[in-house]
Amino acid sequence: MRVSVRLFHTLLLLTMAAFAYAGPLDSWQDTDARQAIVEFVEKTTQEGSPDFVPPRDRIAVFDNDGTLWAEQPVYFQLMFAIDRLRLLAEKHPARAEQEPYKTVLGGDLKKVLHESSIATILDIVTESHSGMTAAQFDRIARDWIKNARHPTKEKPFTGMVYQPMLELLEYLRAHGYKTFIASGGGRAFMRAWVEETYGIPPEQVIGSSVELEYKVIDGKPSLVRKREIGFLDDKEGKPVGIYRRIGRKPVIAFGNSDGDREMLEWTASREGPSLVGIIHHTDSAREWAYDRDSKIGKLDKALEQAGKENWLVVDMAKDWKRVFPD
Amino acid sequence: MRVSVRLFHTLLLLTMAAFAYAGPLDSWQDTDARQAIVEFVEKTTQEGSPDFVPPRDRIAVFDNDGTLWAEQPVYFQLMFAIDRLRLLAEKHPARAEQEPYKTVLGGDLKKVLHESSIATILDIVTESHSGMTAAQFDRIARDWIKNARHPTKEKPFTGMVYQPMLELLEYLRAHGYKTFIASGGGRAFMRAWVEETYGIPPEQVIGSSVELEYKVIDGKPSLVRKREIGFLDDKEGKPVGIYRRIGRKPVIAFGNSDGDREMLEWTASREGPSLVGIIHHTDSAREWAYDRDSKIGKLDKALEQAGKENWLVVDMAKDWKRVFPD
Repeated sequence: MRVSVRLFHTLLLLTMAAFAYAGPLDSWQDTDARQAIVEFVEKTTQEGSPDFVPPRDRIAVFDNDGTLWAEQPVYFQLMFAIDRLRLLAEKHPARAEQEPYKTVLGGDLKKVLHESSIATILDIVTESHSGMTAAQFDRIARDWIKNARHPTKEKPFTGMVYQPMLELLEYLRAHGYKTFIASGGGRAFMRAWVEETYGIPPEQVIGSSVELEYKVIDGKPSLVRKREIGFLDDKEGKPVGIYRRIGRKPVIAFGNSDGDREMLEWTASREGPSLVGIIHHTDSAREWAYDRDSKIGKLDKALEQAGKENWLVVDMAKDWKRVFPD
Repeated sequence: MRVSVRLFHTLLLLTMAAFAYAGPLDSWQDTDARQAIVEFVEKTTQEGSPDFVPPRDRIAVFDNDGTLWAEQPVYFQLMFAIDRLRLLAEKHPARAEQEPYKTVLGGDLKKVLHESSIATILDIVTESHSGMTAAQFDRIARDWIKNARHPTKEKPFTGMVYQPMLELLEYLRAHGYKTFIASGGGRAFMRAWVEETYGIPPEQVIGSSVELEYKVIDGKPSLVRKREIGFLDDKEGKPVGIYRRIGRKPVIAFGNSDGDREMLEWTASREGPSLVGIIHHTDSAREWAYDRDSKIGKLDKALEQAGKENWLVVDMAKDWKRVFPD
């Protein structure tokens, strides 16, 4: 009986929370984008609607970099990787002459990015993200996200999430959608902060990863992060990563770059209703404006396909009242 | 407002369901095993208890073969694989002389199992589980599980799940535990039937897998199952598979064989309370009795470790009032 009473109490609180939930999507302008989202969510969640989607199938996936938080001048995780290698080189000076340390220590952020091949970038990431246990990495990432600041905006990185997207996540969850991240970024890196920031628990974070190895170290069962890419959750990897994790096609997917094209196209091919959206970075005043010619977050093919297939394109400058939380 | 009213309605139904929930663990004898489970669940879910575990961390993982359903005379999925290869060989007679078809067609189930190397068994499984899209495989597996019958018990395989374990899953969920499967069996094979059978949704099924490839076939975005092992969720693979999926250590883990040893040991090393259990097959009258000398579900090292480290060992004959649902 004690159980039932506690459960009743919990459910009562949840019910009150549901009633307290008001003013969804407040940071969205009253434009077509907002209306398309509201109409889609209503028609898929109202019983009796011909487009009703049962709760178990209400899956919504979001890219992270450029979709839920900013990604300029370079992916924030790359700044984490570089900070980490600089720190390691200070502690172990002999490393400074070896790659990828040499590249990192020899240039500024933009130089590292623009003059490096993808192989070098991956090398910077795997080297900085491996050689410790999963628990150790988690502490390192939590520590960085708490203390690091954006080089030009001078804010914590978690202050550079998009307020309208936070509201969209909340709005979808209030309608029974389960929200997932499907990002090219590191799964473990994101898990260190996304629950607090987006309300998305670790088991709903899909991302790239290094291989893990189970080992008992000094009698302590541990998972060691190996210097080896396990999975790249980008481009054609995104539908694969999502299906591996969820076993179903999402109903809703949002992205912002060509790296999301396959995920969006695959979601749009769902039998039954689907909503596929692109965040278009059009706002040089409040954020950044970039698409076809950007090295980071290049949006070209996916934008073309969005036009042809009627995907929702969110124009940051026009459709959002504000960009960041404060 | 419509939203809030519907949500209120849903929560009210949930609340009523919580009150209607009675008689947990009815098929368990009133022995130490049942008591240990109840005590653990109560102390980890009662607020104010020194062992209280917050809802977000209430993760319980279960092996499948031999833990949630039977596994004799061979893993049921191997029967599925063999049935599938026989069917393919009928349709394409030229295959009959090639491996692994030759082995499968040349012998009965026991012979295939006992005379084959692990490499041959894996070959039988990958060949029978690849070369189609994920959606096609899902239909094939659903069809098989509906129609196939156990060779000696002559029941559908979903009738060979353990009633006490169904009740344990339900009991844990009623206390806010999120239940996952972590099985050496195939992720896609299990996803085809475990939701209906155990109430475990596809995103909570961790298992072995073949590699998937995203491809647009005749204009249709598809995931193709490749003839290549993606992940083996067995032995030291289990902690890896669980962490990849969930990003946290479980609080509760149940298994039945040496393939679960690392998962159990890792779970037991959790900071804070943990419950680690082994289903010991001791019941030759109602099920099968086997442990150290069995090729399927061999339980040797894990049983030894259970004794040393005080893991819960469930004695099927003594601790369960009944084994199967009917």
